[in-house]
Amino acid sequence: MKKLINGVERIVYEQLEGLALAHPQLLRVAFDPHYIVRSRPPAANKVAVISGGGSGHEPLHSGFVGYGMLDGACPGAVFTSPTPDQIVACVQAVPRAAGVLLIVKNYTGDVLSFEMAAELLHMEGVTLRTVVVDDDVAVKDSLYTAGRRGVGATLMVEKIAGGAAEAGCGLDQVAELARRTNLGSRSMGLALSSCTVPAVGAPTFALAADEIEIGIGIHGEPGQKRLPCVTLDEMTALLAGAILDDGPYARVEREWSPQQGEWVECTLVNPPFAAGDRVIALVNGMGGTPLSELYAAYRSLVYFCRGRDIQIVRNLVGPYVTALEMAGFSITLTRVDDEMLHFWDAPVHTPALRWRM
Amino acid sequence: MKKLINGVERIVYEQLEGLALAHPQLLRVAFDPHYIVRSRPPAANKVAVISGGGSGHEPLHSGFVGYGMLDGACPGAVFTSPTPDQIVACVQAVPRAAGVLLIVKNYTGDVLSFEMAAELLHMEGVTLRTVVVDDDVAVKDSLYTAGRRGVGATLMVEKIAGGAAEAGCGLDQVAELARRTNLGSRSMGLALSSCTVPAVGAPTFALAADEIEIGIGIHGEPGQKRLPCVTLDEMTALLAGAILDDGPYARVEREWSPQQGEWVECTLVNPPFAAGDRVIALVNGMGGTPLSELYAAYRSLVYFCRGRDIQIVRNLVGPYVTALEMAGFSITLTRVDDEMLHFWDAPVHTPALRWRM
Repeated sequence: MKKLINGVERIVYEQLEGLALAHPQLLRVAFDPHYIVRSRPPAANKVAVISGGGSGHEPLHSGFVGYGMLDGACPGAVFTSPTPDQIVACVQAVPRAAGVLLIVKNYTGDVLSFEMAAELLHMEGVTLRTVVVDDDVAVKDSLYTAGRRGVGATLMVEKIAGGAAEAGCGLDQVAELARRTNLGSRSMGLALSSCTVPAVGAPTFALAADEIEIGIGIHGEPGQKRLPCVTLDEMTALLAGAILDDGPYARVEREWSPQQGEWVECTLVNPPFAAGDRVIALVNGMGGTPLSELYAAYRSLVYFCRGRDIQIVRNLVGPYVTALEMAGFSITLTRVDDEMLHFWDAPVHTPALRWRM
Repeated sequence: MKKLINGVERIVYEQLEGLALAHPQLLRVAFDPHYIVRSRPPAANKVAVISGGGSGHEPLHSGFVGYGMLDGACPGAVFTSPTPDQIVACVQAVPRAAGVLLIVKNYTGDVLSFEMAAELLHMEGVTLRTVVVDDDVAVKDSLYTAGRRGVGATLMVEKIAGGAAEAGCGLDQVAELARRTNLGSRSMGLALSSCTVPAVGAPTFALAADEIEIGIGIHGEPGQKRLPCVTLDEMTALLAGAILDDGPYARVEREWSPQQGEWVECTLVNPPFAAGDRVIALVNGMGGTPLSELYAAYRSLVYFCRGRDIQIVRNLVGPYVTALEMAGFSITLTRVDDEMLHFWDAPVHTPALRWRM
């Protein structure tokens, strides 16, 4: 295994310390338990937006801490959920009088940790809402998930909810926007190569010299199928076709009820895409794919969407939700309305996303 | 060979079209000959800053076209110099009354193409200056270079010269700043893996499972030596040590003399770094290295520089001057004064660098 590391046990610590050294004006890092918060605390009456998950997907989430996006992030070990005490400590380190939105990718471990943290924080009197992101249309359940996995749409949810919170919206509105963003989003990815989890030291899976895996997860967990390598336009048609052809998707969401003192369930439906939809398009590199190839993939996606009368009104091309050094890419489309677009366009200043500032 | 491409002969065309589709408000692309210019032309009395080189190093140079940086870029085929007619067409497509600065990486083919273009443009009455970037301390000459190769410092030169031109500085001042930036810069990189040039279809070189190559070039050309993989701190010491220990470096620069109608030579000396220097630090990914590992490398560099009393006043961490999907990283340090820092900090809005806008 060849990596830019000093030792497997120090990886996350050193990466976080490097991030903080590079961006002291934006964020600071606390250790044991590990979390990241803004170095300049926001106003006391701002809704706090917190996320987290396993490390190895950078810049998600640590690179999105800053003005207009996240107030805090909780990085677990590589591809490992954060612990409840990390989440509790992170929330306790930010202004939370106006309430806290937790943005959670739909993996069983992440959901459990955030639910446990939420219960502890509720007992302390913190008002919280949780939004679970589950945008990956590739598989129904996965090695680590009941239901669909949370992938690229996490960025959209964090940006739009973060923009709304920064603009002074209340917790209900911020949570509703986050949920609407997830309900409007679908993603799918493919891999040209595996990644190597440092603690394992060998590639997670093996692909033949001419083979690609369609519907791969961001931890190297299996996708839908393997194919001989096809052209980029064919790859795009496989991913974007699955996204645009996906039917209505119903899912049970759990929300803590302070009145009842328990989790109550409600069913949410992601309506399918339709001709005339306006979308934000993310062409996301998995970590080991050149930017130039991602731009070629964006070109391919533009033509595909034109053929379906889907109008791309904003785009983001680059490695944002990665799986270490995996080669490949994913596509996320998020249906937007004017309000969502307004908060997408709002100023943001984080290590990985910055505009109008 | 697995890549996100439709066919080897269409690669650069499709990547450039994707770039233009993603950023229509920033740039437009012309084909046959290929070049990129801003979509909103700058003021007629602004010095034009133009660069270019082989494709495969993205975001360099195409991703740096926009406000506060490049007015135009000329992309050759993958790892292949642009042709003189590309450069001439690009210069003819931008306002050039205030003169043109050509920023050229020191590779024999690039230097020849830009010199031929400069002679043609001089004959048309265009006032030009050329600055050759040669910051790589790894090897004296290389497969493609007489003298040192131009690598990471190209970004520093393009940003600082671009900032000065945007602020209304005249050609002499912009060229002098570009030259000063290059003279204050040194770089070195290492590879954990090769890259595959699409037209070749097989890796450029082979490294053993535990082997790294020190001093690698951005086209996969050989470096100084191969070593068994060492820790990140040892890698950083090898690269940053070579940069900080490098003595004065003298080089002959050629500048066109309109009076004499020929190229005249002058000797320029890069003075070595010294304790107390203020630097901009670039920790650059070669294309296939996770961002998280680059932040760990930045941490390592901070500690190394502290030990030498070198003060990092600005930093940039990410894949900026790449070699397709090569795994590895390079370090660039640029000694700065207040004027250089002012133009580094100046607003920029390009696909790959954006701040204060």
